[in-house]
Amino acid sequence: MAASLAARALGRASFQEAFAARAFIHAMLEFEAALAAAQAAESVIPEAHAKAIRTACDSVAIDEAALVAEGRRNASLAVPLVKRLREHLARSSPDAAKSLHLGATSQDVLDTATALCLKPCLEEADRTLEATVRAIARHAHEHRATPMLGRTLLQPALPMSAGLKLARWAAALAADRERLAEGEAAGLALQLGGPIGTLQSMQGKGPAVRHRMALALGLADAPEWQSHRNAWIDLLDRAALVALTAGKIARDVALLSQAEVGEMREAPPREGVGGSSAMPHKHNPVACAQALAAAVRLPGLLAALHAAALGEHERALGGWQAELAIVPEIAACLGSALDFLDTIGASLVVDAGRMAQNLARHGERGAIDTQAVDEILAGLAPYLG
Amino acid sequence: MAASLAARALGRASFQEAFAARAFIHAMLEFEAALAAAQAAESVIPEAHAKAIRTACDSVAIDEAALVAEGRRNASLAVPLVKRLREHLARSSPDAAKSLHLGATSQDVLDTATALCLKPCLEEADRTLEATVRAIARHAHEHRATPMLGRTLLQPALPMSAGLKLARWAAALAADRERLAEGEAAGLALQLGGPIGTLQSMQGKGPAVRHRMALALGLADAPEWQSHRNAWIDLLDRAALVALTAGKIARDVALLSQAEVGEMREAPPREGVGGSSAMPHKHNPVACAQALAAAVRLPGLLAALHAAALGEHERALGGWQAELAIVPEIAACLGSALDFLDTIGASLVVDAGRMAQNLARHGERGAIDTQAVDEILAGLAPYLG
Amino acid sequence: MAASLAARALGRASFQEAFAARAFIHAMLEFEAALAAAQAAESVIPEAHAKAIRTACDSVAIDEAALVAEGRRNASLAVPLVKRLREHLARSSPDAAKSLHLGATSQDVLDTATALCLKPCLEEADRTLEATVRAIARHAHEHRATPMLGRTLLQPALPMSAGLKLARWAAALAADRERLAEGEAAGLALQLGGPIGTLQSMQGKGPAVRHRMALALGLADAPEWQSHRNAWIDLLDRAALVALTAGKIARDVALLSQAEVGEMREAPPREGVGGSSAMPHKHNPVACAQALAAAVRLPGLLAALHAAALGEHERALGGWQAELAIVPEIAACLGSALDFLDTIGASLVVDAGRMAQNLARHGERGAIDTQAVDEILAGLAPYLG
Amino acid sequence: MAASLAARALGRASFQEAFAARAFIHAMLEFEAALAAAQAAESVIPEAHAKAIRTACDSVAIDEAALVAEGRRNASLAVPLVKRLREHLARSSPDAAKSLHLGATSQDVLDTATALCLKPCLEEADRTLEATVRAIARHAHEHRATPMLGRTLLQPALPMSAGLKLARWAAALAADRERLAEGEAAGLALQLGGPIGTLQSMQGKGPAVRHRMALALGLADAPEWQSHRNAWIDLLDRAALVALTAGKIARDVALLSQAEVGEMREAPPREGVGGSSAMPHKHNPVACAQALAAAVRLPGLLAALHAAALGEHERALGGWQAELAIVPEIAACLGSALDFLDTIGASLVVDAGRMAQNLARHGERGAIDTQAVDEILAGLAPYLG
Repeated sequence: MAASLAARALGRASFQEAFAARAFIHAMLEFEAALAAAQAAESVIPEAHAKAIRTACDSVAIDEAALVAEGRRNASLAVPLVKRLREHLARSSPDAAKSLHLGATSQDVLDTATALCLKPCLEEADRTLEATVRAIARHAHEHRATPMLGRTLLQPALPMSAGLKLARWAAALAADRERLAEGEAAGLALQLGGPIGTLQSMQGKGPAVRHRMALALGLADAPEWQSHRNAWIDLLDRAALVALTAGKIARDVALLSQAEVGEMREAPPREGVGGSSAMPHKHNPVACAQALAAAVRLPGLLAALHAAALGEHERALGGWQAELAIVPEIAACLGSALDFLDTIGASLVVDAGRMAQNLARHGERGAIDTQAVDEILAGLAPYLG
Repeated sequence: MAASLAARALGRASFQEAFAARAFIHAMLEFEAALAAAQAAESVIPEAHAKAIRTACDSVAIDEAALVAEGRRNASLAVPLVKRLREHLARSSPDAAKSLHLGATSQDVLDTATALCLKPCLEEADRTLEATVRAIARHAHEHRATPMLGRTLLQPALPMSAGLKLARWAAALAADRERLAEGEAAGLALQLGGPIGTLQSMQGKGPAVRHRMALALGLADAPEWQSHRNAWIDLLDRAALVALTAGKIARDVALLSQAEVGEMREAPPREGVGGSSAMPHKHNPVACAQALAAAVRLPGLLAALHAAALGEHERALGGWQAELAIVPEIAACLGSALDFLDTIGASLVVDAGRMAQNLARHGERGAIDTQAVDEILAGLAPYLG
Repeated sequence: MAASLAARALGRASFQEAFAARAFIHAMLEFEAALAAAQAAESVIPEAHAKAIRTACDSVAIDEAALVAEGRRNASLAVPLVKRLREHLARSSPDAAKSLHLGATSQDVLDTATALCLKPCLEEADRTLEATVRAIARHAHEHRATPMLGRTLLQPALPMSAGLKLARWAAALAADRERLAEGEAAGLALQLGGPIGTLQSMQGKGPAVRHRMALALGLADAPEWQSHRNAWIDLLDRAALVALTAGKIARDVALLSQAEVGEMREAPPREGVGGSSAMPHKHNPVACAQALAAAVRLPGLLAALHAAALGEHERALGGWQAELAIVPEIAACLGSALDFLDTIGASLVVDAGRMAQNLARHGERGAIDTQAVDEILAGLAPYLG
Repeated sequence: MAASLAARALGRASFQEAFAARAFIHAMLEFEAALAAAQAAESVIPEAHAKAIRTACDSVAIDEAALVAEGRRNASLAVPLVKRLREHLARSSPDAAKSLHLGATSQDVLDTATALCLKPCLEEADRTLEATVRAIARHAHEHRATPMLGRTLLQPALPMSAGLKLARWAAALAADRERLAEGEAAGLALQLGGPIGTLQSMQGKGPAVRHRMALALGLADAPEWQSHRNAWIDLLDRAALVALTAGKIARDVALLSQAEVGEMREAPPREGVGGSSAMPHKHNPVACAQALAAAVRLPGLLAALHAAALGEHERALGGWQAELAIVPEIAACLGSALDFLDTIGASLVVDAGRMAQNLARHGERGAIDTQAVDEILAGLAPYLG
């Protein structure tokens, strides 16, 4: 499992499965099988070898602890994985063993496996974002003329539409969703380059093999990115922006949930949720806590990601290896953000009565201008159908 | 002047001018004049008022030190600027004074002024990137069959084409350039929202005023982004990616410039450049130092930028104010990166002889596969015309 | 297990055990048992209850997955742990159940458990640092008059003593070791405060209970630090400085290991270490890779740690929860640094012959001044005995 | 001036002067004069030369813009400064010119100048911290039995002593103050090493010269730290902890200043402070904004500082140069934090009436346990005399 026990309690279950040790090993094996299949299709290796490799990938037993221990001696999990797989394969198909991992290198396996683990997370992010935008846009529409106090610098400013605040959240998430989809199209790519990124052992078929393999794995096809990683980093930056918006919304919701304010809540109080080990009466905004913890961690993780990319020559020493540890953490933060979005999408409570009371206490009353909320809602039309 | 004296010695002169105190004040005044002009065009204020405001903006004398001192008491430079401008305006056109800054708020002025200062920097980045890609792509083409040692994990790997390394640099910069242009289209936007982002004092003409004003200032038109800043952050993330690529190239060049390697240099030795205060014989790779210093600073600055965006309600307390300090630093790093790119674009030295020697010493010789470099060069065709 | 599979291959086995799920659960249970024992000793609860609690802590079976799932609903692992433990205890000693976790709160359990997991890591760091300083100081002493090329800005500077470089490494690590020990004395403290940090349910015995409990757990005794965490952060900052020095040394070693330089190596080539999945002839500096990956990750993790501390009121929302995810990552980086230090402590190779050759090629020869190395070696006397 | 115009409006005036261009040039000149004086005292150069150098340092006119422009060509401000000073000196004392900067190098000048600029800032920090701790401790003492609502996870928890909250702030600042003083003793050191850190041109008098010079400049004496910078980084980490505590206090004050809460304010409303350019009725917590902006920036700046320290060989390429830009920003953040502390030290408003009302609304009443506040106040005795 990716992450410490305490971190897991902040994380999203499905994301933890996506980056679990088993899933990562599976992804590495999928790389090898897909490589062989693509090489067979391009006649770089015999079809029979590709089949044997596929079978071996499906049947090999990998001991996690041994893999990690040997991986440590080589600063690469791929070295022992390929070795173990080759031994397994050699037992049934000694000939096929020489076609295994042909022309590929460790970073090809590890980068691609990471991308494969991230893929379902991004798909889930897209679905959650869509659903959340729909849900919040509906709240916004419903409350487009509900007056609430606008607040700036944590002080009362002027009355505004509650729907405007909600519509801004929805619009921000909708824009994040678009940015993420664009980033995925460019940045969730197969890494296949071989030792120095030239695919030179593939008899001139390198690009064709890469293209087939990318298609089979559901990843973008692009020249190797082992030493220039900006498309990948850009994708992760965009994922971080999703979590940043979630964190900002969580901060707003948490502030509005303060007992003295009481204008919104992430969800109605529920038995067994948000409890305290010391004060049974409490209902803590746990989804907000999760989103805020993620948003607080992410800037530093992005800093690490960017720092890791400043690598040497054709493959860095330490940089991309660090990334292998950083990316699952970034994904975990995105998962926490999605958990929060699921919660508020399903059960956000908007208390128009408390809004009115708070406004009245500040001597504010009267009609609310809805032009601004209507402009944003117009942009959210696809989500309001 | 943005930045300490020592930081200035690492920075790009034109970028320092772009964010100089005078330039920032000018940009704030441009905001006020453009706002009035747009409001007059939409009949929100009289045409004569707009003209008087324009004249006042062009003629007002602003005392920087006084502005900063008063700004500090309000956590906003815009408060004293508008006050000073209003006094100046009131002397010649007392009536027009009530049309000044109508419906706007401090953050509108400050965010827009920051965007206006950034604008010429991004334009310069685009030009420098284009020229550098052209120059490096030409080197790549020239050296497509020049053998050099490929290096991974700082150890010798296999022989490769020197042109491939160069082509990868060029392709990375070309991709960065595209990403930056896309980010600018979405993220370099006018900020105009008024106190809570509703433009409610503009008699229903808010969006029309905003549209005209954006056009006049050469910025994108978008609903206010005072509390949801991801398009802006995304733009700055992309700017950082440019500097990251520059830093990676600088690291490669610096490693290849080591006396023991000697395969490339950022420029031929020049009198008065790269000197040491202690060792007159030295020729330090000063452009590399500049790019690496920028690349080392940027991840932390991005972390700060992302952290600052986690704001409260309709306008944050501390967050966006922090940004006003962070963005000029990010721009300065981009400027340093461009200085480096200018240098290597103009005068990169590729020493094929040393490459051959180093290969020979490792017992490597023979033909180089050019498929990989040719694939990348094909993608760079627009730059090789 | 703390960290993703790929991260584990960069990590130190003993540190991963220290923060493994089982270890963290054990530490939480130790908290509860030690609390009860201290409260019994101060007559806050009956002695029999403390014994029953101790027995329950030793015998309770905790289902990790269920704990995480329920923890997620409360943004706290401690809530379900205490609940499960209470149920277990109630079966054998219904009376004792009301003495369990008396006056404590979730953060008490979680912060203390984290400190308990970190404790053996810091002890190991101290031992590894001592051994490494000894080993490197011996190399330094041996090579105090060995000439090597000093290098600045990645260019040749002047001849210097190889021992000076080594002595600087040793002195830096020795200073880091001292700083770490001081930081541990202040910052590795028991957290015990109860809901709002007042220990008010402990019949005026709060401080006495805390004192006994800290002693029993081997942690420092200090007033609760739930909302002001600087002593703790300072400790982790110091741990990061160890990894930073290790990273700097690793960078030097890796640069000196370049084939063209060849003046040092992290270890003699060994079968099965540092291999490549593509190039069997390679011997990658894997310990350097491990140290550099850690050093690259740490600045961002520190940024996250500091950001997380900016919490609200008597206990933050999201901040300290984020820390629970960040601290194991910081520890993991420290572990990677120690692995590297173990390696170079045991088997650093210094090649005086290549140093002489490289100097000769730069036309440098002649005697080396040893004053600087001797000054540093004098400071390292305790390690050279 | 260090920092952009907008950043200056967040900064502390005295700190901006401390790092102003003039101050930095002055500090560089002080380095040269003190070096010559110490060398004369140790008979490394003639006394007359030292006097001539002192005179030249006091009389030379330095053109900032020219210095920066030439500094950029050498990635070092010290190269042109020494050159200009040497020309000036040569006019009156041609003989003395060869004694100038003897045995020193650029980084010696720049690191020491940075330390000299930081020195008055740290002294000011110490004084401000002392005064603030005194002021807040007095508030804490006054309110040791004032009931207020304790809040955790932004939700009401239990009643507590208002004095406890205040005492925790004071204790945190007092601990920060101690840590800072310790860090300064070790980390605010003269940097003097010459090209490769050996002081080899000083006729064996290097350490003695260094010792005298450190004493004269009021800095600690330590072997050069050009490539191992942890004592310096540790000092800056500790400075950041001050700003972190200030930020945490500012967050608390800002939350308590919310109109719906109203329990504390950073200061009574004052004319001309905290105004809005759009809403004249507002009184924004501007000191809180300043502290929070600083606290939000600092984690990223620390990340940059740590990343910059991962340098190559005897002097890094890009790393320490980046530091020259980072340190003034860190200092600026510390200055903002001190401004906030000055404000709350002088004029924090504690509204016991609103505290009572808010408690009553939550149905809480009754006596407050003062044991916890009394324990902390006892530790603050030196500040309560």
